Amino acid sequence: MSFTKAPLLLLGISLLLSTPVWADETGPTKAPSRPKNIVIMIGDGMGPSYTSAYRYYKDNPDTEEVEQTVFDRLLVGMASTYPASVSGYVTDSAAAATALATGVKSYNGAISVDTQKQPLPTILEKAKSLGLSTGVAVTSQINHATPAAFLAHNESRKNYDALALSYLETNADVFLGGGQKYFPPALLEQFKAKGYQHISRFEDLASITQPKVLGLFAEVQLPWAIDEKDARKLSTLTQKALSLLSQNDQGFVLLVEGSLIDWAGHNNDIATAMGEMDEFSNAIEVVEQFVREHPDTLMVITADHNTGGLSIGVDGNYNWNPEILRNISASTDTLALAAITGEQWQADLARGLGFELSEEEVAKLNVARMQGLETMAVAIRHLIDKRTDTGWTTDGHTGTDVQVFAAGPASELFNGHQDNTDIANKIFSLLPKPKKPKS
Amino acid sequence: MSFTKAPLLLLGISLLLSTPVWADETGPTKAPSRPKNIVIMIGDGMGPSYTSAYRYYKDNPDTEEVEQTVFDRLLVGMASTYPASVSGYVTDSAAAATALATGVKSYNGAISVDTQKQPLPTILEKAKSLGLSTGVAVTSQINHATPAAFLAHNESRKNYDALALSYLETNADVFLGGGQKYFPPALLEQFKAKGYQHISRFEDLASITQPKVLGLFAEVQLPWAIDEKDARKLSTLTQKALSLLSQNDQGFVLLVEGSLIDWAGHNNDIATAMGEMDEFSNAIEVVEQFVREHPDTLMVITADHNTGGLSIGVDGNYNWNPEILRNISASTDTLALAAITGEQWQADLARGLGFELSEEEVAKLNVARMQGLETMAVAIRHLIDKRTDTGWTTDGHTGTDVQVFAAGPASELFNGHQDNTDIANKIFSLLPKPKKPKS
Repeated sequence: MSFTKAPLLLLGISLLLSTPVWADETGPTKAPSRPKNIVIMIGDGMGPSYTSAYRYYKDNPDTEEVEQTVFDRLLVGMASTYPASVSGYVTDSAAAATALATGVKSYNGAISVDTQKQPLPTILEKAKSLGLSTGVAVTSQINHATPAAFLAHNESRKNYDALALSYLETNADVFLGGGQKYFPPALLEQFKAKGYQHISRFEDLASITQPKVLGLFAEVQLPWAIDEKDARKLSTLTQKALSLLSQNDQGFVLLVEGSLIDWAGHNNDIATAMGEMDEFSNAIEVVEQFVREHPDTLMVITADHNTGGLSIGVDGNYNWNPEILRNISASTDTLALAAITGEQWQADLARGLGFELSEEEVAKLNVARMQGLETMAVAIRHLIDKRTDTGWTTDGHTGTDVQVFAAGPASELFNGHQDNTDIANKIFSLLPKPKKPKS
Repeated sequence: MSFTKAPLLLLGISLLLSTPVWADETGPTKAPSRPKNIVIMIGDGMGPSYTSAYRYYKDNPDTEEVEQTVFDRLLVGMASTYPASVSGYVTDSAAAATALATGVKSYNGAISVDTQKQPLPTILEKAKSLGLSTGVAVTSQINHATPAAFLAHNESRKNYDALALSYLETNADVFLGGGQKYFPPALLEQFKAKGYQHISRFEDLASITQPKVLGLFAEVQLPWAIDEKDARKLSTLTQKALSLLSQNDQGFVLLVEGSLIDWAGHNNDIATAMGEMDEFSNAIEVVEQFVREHPDTLMVITADHNTGGLSIGVDGNYNWNPEILRNISASTDTLALAAITGEQWQADLARGLGFELSEEEVAKLNVARMQGLETMAVAIRHLIDKRTDTGWTTDGHTGTDVQVFAAGPASELFNGHQDNTDIANKIFSLLPKPKKPKS
């Protein structure tokens, strides 16, 4: 029997000692058994094919080996994503975010309400009630499904105005992302009255030195990362959120979302998707560095679902050509707009794509160009798919499991297979216990 | 510093004590630091979408929760599958099997030879040289790419006859699978001369009570599992291989392959693929039970690559309908053959599919039926895909990472992300050290 108990004992000790790999750098002499800070990072739509494709997209062609990515370094398990049975087996972002934020499955479209449309307590609400600071840093509008499910409750993800209004009651310390159109002047005044600094210019982010802050840097979502080389916006928002939230000695919970990986996936736009993956991985490295410097911080990364049915190789070709993607200098939306309006559009497009267009390709594009912007953008995406051997099955979501990545104290809890609701319930269990009232 | 070393120490100890969770049931009082027996199981083509789809295929619709599968229970990590750079980023089964059998990446088509076509030592060869017993139990011909790469060497997977001949030199103890056409009478005589019992009827398997055995139960591959309800052939072959190989006190290494998951994937045949997944999971449960009863046995399960770009949900539908698959009583090949030859083909096909055909479906099938067997089979697959919202991107392979599952001593070594070559190298490191010659 002593043999059977030994591993459990050792597991306990390992958990206690799980952070000292950093302890000799900057950490405390005694590592905590539960994290002080928790950073939850969601790559929206980032199924297994996205992290695999990203590895090959980032591969250095001058070396025989394929270099590992931050995702490879941090992988610990996988998670199932199915919604409540009323919505079948394929989740939307709202039901998935509800599962990840509350530990309860609900119907597609639900924002942290159950199948009876009753509100469900969220991780950020619980953390706030325990005296921790909370925040979100995302590339979509801040009231989009994923951040909304961590902050608020609504029977429908589509009630953007109601969700924005409900953020007044969250008492969250940091809101960073897009969504200006959902926060009219009168609402902004109410946030200011509650002590929020409001900014709308990315350059003003540096001037913010303490919470609370409501930073809305786009009408709706932020620009595609591929259209703003080296802007590193999500990394910057993440870094700022960490520095603001870490001012609370009691700790914090931060949600970071690479929201637009999913949007590019819905568009079946591989070049733009890889650009979003790259900036999400930059943001992960920002958090990873914070965890190294603050060994009492747990980071957990996952996806809410898989988008687009992305396929590395298509139509029987045992091949994928990411080197083409590495040379594309703008999103297909931007390239299409330029091609619709420009006179030298063929030369401009070839320059933007980084390769010469074949006569057949030009012929197809000429037809598409007559039919307007969206058709032209789709034609350019098909051209890139053909050149790279990229495949897609849907402009929606699929039910394949997603990966789970973690580092920091208690990260072992996320090893192996789990359901998306398990991820939330494990995080709930790591929040501090409520203080007993002095008697 | 003691803090930084402590976890490594604990890891070492944990590894030593990794099996005692079974120790109080049937195991030795002292658990081994390395396994005595190793069972390697490969679900050919079984990417993440297959194990996810299988979970929903097996879900009990009468319960709100989705029941876990053996794959969920055993998941520990994932693996990249890319071949040697000369073959790009998408592997074939030969290069993947070479990586898993030798720890070295090679070109697509290679059977355990390097990019210079020089032979590479395989796990089964090394095990045999150390006095362990070795064997393979597969549903393809036993000289197909995967088992061939564990047993032999050839510059091309297509040299089936040469591979069959080379099996004479492997001294392996158990060959169970298909492939009669590659083993002519003269070759069979040579195997008998080497002490092999040869059988070709599945019923004769029970009569085999000790190695060596060459059991070839089909001209090429075994029948589709879905066409032989309750035959449980791979489970039966696996059980027999375990009982024969475990007669060696020095231990054994067994390769089990669910070969036809990949073949069904190449056909984009979801119903048949789920049937193959089901029998592969039956075989895994046979090995899992053996590990419980023999805690000195390590089981490692993975896929060599992903096939077909299978997608759970397609064309924008947030939906997948496995209940339809549960009622299909035969493979699309079998249903198509009956529909081509039968007079009451519409009624027969509806019965085989488990649902009534719509007028539109009948119209399409009528056209396909005129064009022969293969076209009719494809038409039936498309009909099933449409009804179930199943998607595919290719009749070949894709480059997405695959999962890794493990249990038993040192199974922790396979946690997290790894390359397919790492899996082989970890297994090599767990084989016993060569005995020093007495001086």
